[in-house]
Amino acid sequence: MDCQHIVNRIYDQIVQLEDRGAVASYIPELAKVDPKQFGVCLTTKDGKQHSSGDTQVLFSIQSVAKVLSLSLVLSKIGDDLWKRMDFEPSGSAFNSLVQLESENGIPRNPLINAGAIVVCDIICSLYENPKDELLEYLRFVSGIKDLTYSKDIALSEQQTGYRNYALVNFIKSFGNIKNDCETVIDLYFHLCSIEMTCEQLSYTFGFLSNQGKQLLTQKEIVTPNQAKRINAIMQTCGFYDEAGEFAFKVGLPGKSGVGGGIVAVLPNAYTIATWSPSLNKHGNSYRGMQFLEAFTTATQDTVF
Amino acid sequence: MDCQHIVNRIYDQIVQLEDRGAVASYIPELAKVDPKQFGVCLTTKDGKQHSSGDTQVLFSIQSVAKVLSLSLVLSKIGDDLWKRMDFEPSGSAFNSLVQLESENGIPRNPLINAGAIVVCDIICSLYENPKDELLEYLRFVSGIKDLTYSKDIALSEQQTGYRNYALVNFIKSFGNIKNDCETVIDLYFHLCSIEMTCEQLSYTFGFLSNQGKQLLTQKEIVTPNQAKRINAIMQTCGFYDEAGEFAFKVGLPGKSGVGGGIVAVLPNAYTIATWSPSLNKHGNSYRGMQFLEAFTTATQDTVF
Amino acid sequence: MDCQHIVNRIYDQIVQLEDRGAVASYIPELAKVDPKQFGVCLTTKDGKQHSSGDTQVLFSIQSVAKVLSLSLVLSKIGDDLWKRMDFEPSGSAFNSLVQLESENGIPRNPLINAGAIVVCDIICSLYENPKDELLEYLRFVSGIKDLTYSKDIALSEQQTGYRNYALVNFIKSFGNIKNDCETVIDLYFHLCSIEMTCEQLSYTFGFLSNQGKQLLTQKEIVTPNQAKRINAIMQTCGFYDEAGEFAFKVGLPGKSGVGGGIVAVLPNAYTIATWSPSLNKHGNSYRGMQFLEAFTTATQDTVF
Amino acid sequence: MDCQHIVNRIYDQIVQLEDRGAVASYIPELAKVDPKQFGVCLTTKDGKQHSSGDTQVLFSIQSVAKVLSLSLVLSKIGDDLWKRMDFEPSGSAFNSLVQLESENGIPRNPLINAGAIVVCDIICSLYENPKDELLEYLRFVSGIKDLTYSKDIALSEQQTGYRNYALVNFIKSFGNIKNDCETVIDLYFHLCSIEMTCEQLSYTFGFLSNQGKQLLTQKEIVTPNQAKRINAIMQTCGFYDEAGEFAFKVGLPGKSGVGGGIVAVLPNAYTIATWSPSLNKHGNSYRGMQFLEAFTTATQDTVF
Repeated sequence: MDCQHIVNRIYDQIVQLEDRGAVASYIPELAKVDPKQFGVCLTTKDGKQHSSGDTQVLFSIQSVAKVLSLSLVLSKIGDDLWKRMDFEPSGSAFNSLVQLESENGIPRNPLINAGAIVVCDIICSLYENPKDELLEYLRFVSGIKDLTYSKDIALSEQQTGYRNYALVNFIKSFGNIKNDCETVIDLYFHLCSIEMTCEQLSYTFGFLSNQGKQLLTQKEIVTPNQAKRINAIMQTCGFYDEAGEFAFKVGLPGKSGVGGGIVAVLPNAYTIATWSPSLNKHGNSYRGMQFLEAFTTATQDTVF
Repeated sequence: MDCQHIVNRIYDQIVQLEDRGAVASYIPELAKVDPKQFGVCLTTKDGKQHSSGDTQVLFSIQSVAKVLSLSLVLSKIGDDLWKRMDFEPSGSAFNSLVQLESENGIPRNPLINAGAIVVCDIICSLYENPKDELLEYLRFVSGIKDLTYSKDIALSEQQTGYRNYALVNFIKSFGNIKNDCETVIDLYFHLCSIEMTCEQLSYTFGFLSNQGKQLLTQKEIVTPNQAKRINAIMQTCGFYDEAGEFAFKVGLPGKSGVGGGIVAVLPNAYTIATWSPSLNKHGNSYRGMQFLEAFTTATQDTVF
Repeated sequence: MDCQHIVNRIYDQIVQLEDRGAVASYIPELAKVDPKQFGVCLTTKDGKQHSSGDTQVLFSIQSVAKVLSLSLVLSKIGDDLWKRMDFEPSGSAFNSLVQLESENGIPRNPLINAGAIVVCDIICSLYENPKDELLEYLRFVSGIKDLTYSKDIALSEQQTGYRNYALVNFIKSFGNIKNDCETVIDLYFHLCSIEMTCEQLSYTFGFLSNQGKQLLTQKEIVTPNQAKRINAIMQTCGFYDEAGEFAFKVGLPGKSGVGGGIVAVLPNAYTIATWSPSLNKHGNSYRGMQFLEAFTTATQDTVF
Repeated sequence: MDCQHIVNRIYDQIVQLEDRGAVASYIPELAKVDPKQFGVCLTTKDGKQHSSGDTQVLFSIQSVAKVLSLSLVLSKIGDDLWKRMDFEPSGSAFNSLVQLESENGIPRNPLINAGAIVVCDIICSLYENPKDELLEYLRFVSGIKDLTYSKDIALSEQQTGYRNYALVNFIKSFGNIKNDCETVIDLYFHLCSIEMTCEQLSYTFGFLSNQGKQLLTQKEIVTPNQAKRINAIMQTCGFYDEAGEFAFKVGLPGKSGVGGGIVAVLPNAYTIATWSPSLNKHGNSYRGMQFLEAFTTATQDTVF
């Protein structure tokens, strides 16, 4: 198929539709972004990129980064991770505390906030300087040498992230946080503050379409088996209470963030990153969801 | 790959392991089955079958049949189905009433009991003689001319199915059952009473690996797009509160039943049916789950 | 204090206020009642009655009758009752199924639907002809020789009571219903169909203000200790999710019904029955609640 | 009745029974207390005290203090308090977060942790030096001039109170905390750290048996109407998920704390404080509950 042609065609079609979404307002720093921006980048397994729109603008990848912290921890401690959390869909909102109460502080999966916070706690136990080591890892996976945390975003989250403070303290009350709450949540806010462009994000997630190996360099990020499992978790848990809808309409494993980014993976074929800051009522990028549904409908190429 | 060889090898390996499951006891008729039986049948897209073990013994397919009632209704009313239910994972047990209460009688998906009961209600509205018409459809999809309901199983479920009576009445209290509760639940109990052999079940589900077309005859059961969506729903919702685990460990869309049957689909490639009556603590076949995990680990061929 | 004078004064004051309630519509038979009716009757411990308004019109006492079925069962099996249910406030709506699921079919208290249904099951186990025996008991307690069930109301509830059918089947699925669901729910619907006038209801509940002894005759209905406990249960559980508000604003143990009746008790002093069919948003009589709040504010005589 | 005689008799009876409770261990400082101690003090409305056992030993009154912070806020802002919380029983554990999530950060009542934390937030808004002003108020109500916070207890709670940190942050995420989380929770921990003897506690709560007026001095602490309402709230909400049991078995409004203290009030008659550090499985003093049940059974004098 002529990827560039299809990407362009679907992009042009979606960009003309009315954008009925709204920019996330609960993190003040995100509310400042121009909502009209929209970019799409498809990266094939052999490293070729097909871009359309605003694909070289930095944006806050937010929760999309939870897949990368999961990769780091899986590659370090393997299946011991599952002693600390489960890999089941939550059936609830991304920041719900309800299940934690009945399930004794064991998060449902590593891609909801509760799970990502426990992943951060594990990183804090692994390294003396967890913020530095995590950044080092993110630079390695993305191949971006000067990747840095966004201090403004991290600060903005810290000042308004009461729900996340509640989560870390709640989990700690069950004994499933081993480090200081402040240290853990600080790492979590920094993880969520990472900024990339569509093209960078698309390349970064390429290892999930390539049996765990970084595109072009073929360095192993995770084992082939771990790559499959990360894809499986994205499929069942990547979109909070819209996981079924994404599987149903798009048919690919993926992960979204409130900054308006989405990554979707067709294993052994390609990775697509989309970015548009306006969100639908479930908190996923309005145009991004539309693009991905139209794209896989056009190509008829999904995991199902 | 030499399918027959791999099926045999994994079968022999699993059958030697201790079976730590237990036969479902809540439906008295099911408790009578010999728990040692174990059969596996893989059917490739071109209709060839590779069997091992007890693949010609009839067993109660139970909830696996919910995929077929879903196919019937999808092929008849299309997306109107989604006005009556959602397609999201439930995060709860298969017979939970909790979510229905907060979600006003709208089931989470068509593969949990609540959703399958609403599907049965739709069938009752479509046909004057719903039990006959459903049987006719099941004969058509399976190609088994003399397929019948098991009266003993249906009666056994009816006599002990208080939770399902509760469900249909509860949903009706929200207005999401249009027909008489007795009629609807009677159809539901009959749907769950269908018996097939492993080989029959494996062939029957072949249309989900074949873009919606029946194997060999190439008759359209559902559209290609509907086939994808049924696979997507099986992936996210087919295993109750173990959906994530099946995606994680097996990596294929699938559906299990308390009779010990499991069907899994690799789109555009094959369908596997396994049957062994002992269940693990989540209510899925103990040996079936072990076989499928070992099989996709060996072939390294999953949707992810 | 001059009871008649205060009753009249508060009655006249409340009847002039706008009635912002609405008649219950979910039981069709109840929706036919003239909403403007309003009666109040206070009966002192020595049997004197002070009435104002429509106090001689028959109305459906509905859930108020649950206190009488509780009295019957307590007097027959004593504390064995608490093996089948608890006596804690539910914190939920009167017909919620949620708590039953997490609490294994043990109702929170005998005054929510679930608890009253289990009480009816116990009555079915106690007597060969439970409907006759219950009626006999109600005639005895009320002193009304020709008291009968309202067939129209019972039928109306039966035809629309899907939630209650769901409840009895749900509880039976946990093993906490010993008799046939149909028999139990039939008794329950008949219990709720009892009709009395305000004056009759006020006299009937007199035993709860008289250490368990019937007014005038001094026959023991329940022991003094049981009377205290029934009052305690009414205080904490008598008004579904408005129990706190009734304790807070009225300050007396009491019980309401969707027919618009309310009974409140000042132990060792008096019983008040109010009736007005329009209900507030919590399902309690709008004028009844207003009267009782104004009355105890005027007399400054509450249990607190 | 000869109060001193009855108090002594019941005390002697209870102290001989095996104590099957256990000291609270989750606040380390409380775990150090000698569990064998047991004191009871009844204070009649005219100020006379009848004591038995360890009634002059200081102990941590813990949650019992929540009634006093409620009194302060009610006397200052009156019914405006109910814009920030409800007065309904919770039907859940004292530190549950579940209801807060579905009820948008509005606590069920002022006597569960969530409600008491919002009460502390209101105190923080009322005063520039909330800790000093609260202490001043507690000195005034108790008549203890040198009453102080226990620094050890407050520190111990702060170091282990992750659940309470979670609560304050969670409520703040809904906008129902107006001040800094640290300031609010610090006040809350200090409130819970107050120590009194049984005799002091019994006298302090005397205003609730005396129409809101301090015993002996007759100074108004709250209005008569507010005193009734505080008693009503204690009746329906004072014992977490054992509120029904306390109403049922003891029949008086009351409040308990994990330090092993309980206060119960017979309006217009007396206040009893009991203290014994071993707790039953619901977190209420094992001997205290036994004493109060036996006491009101003996006197047959309850609010019901």
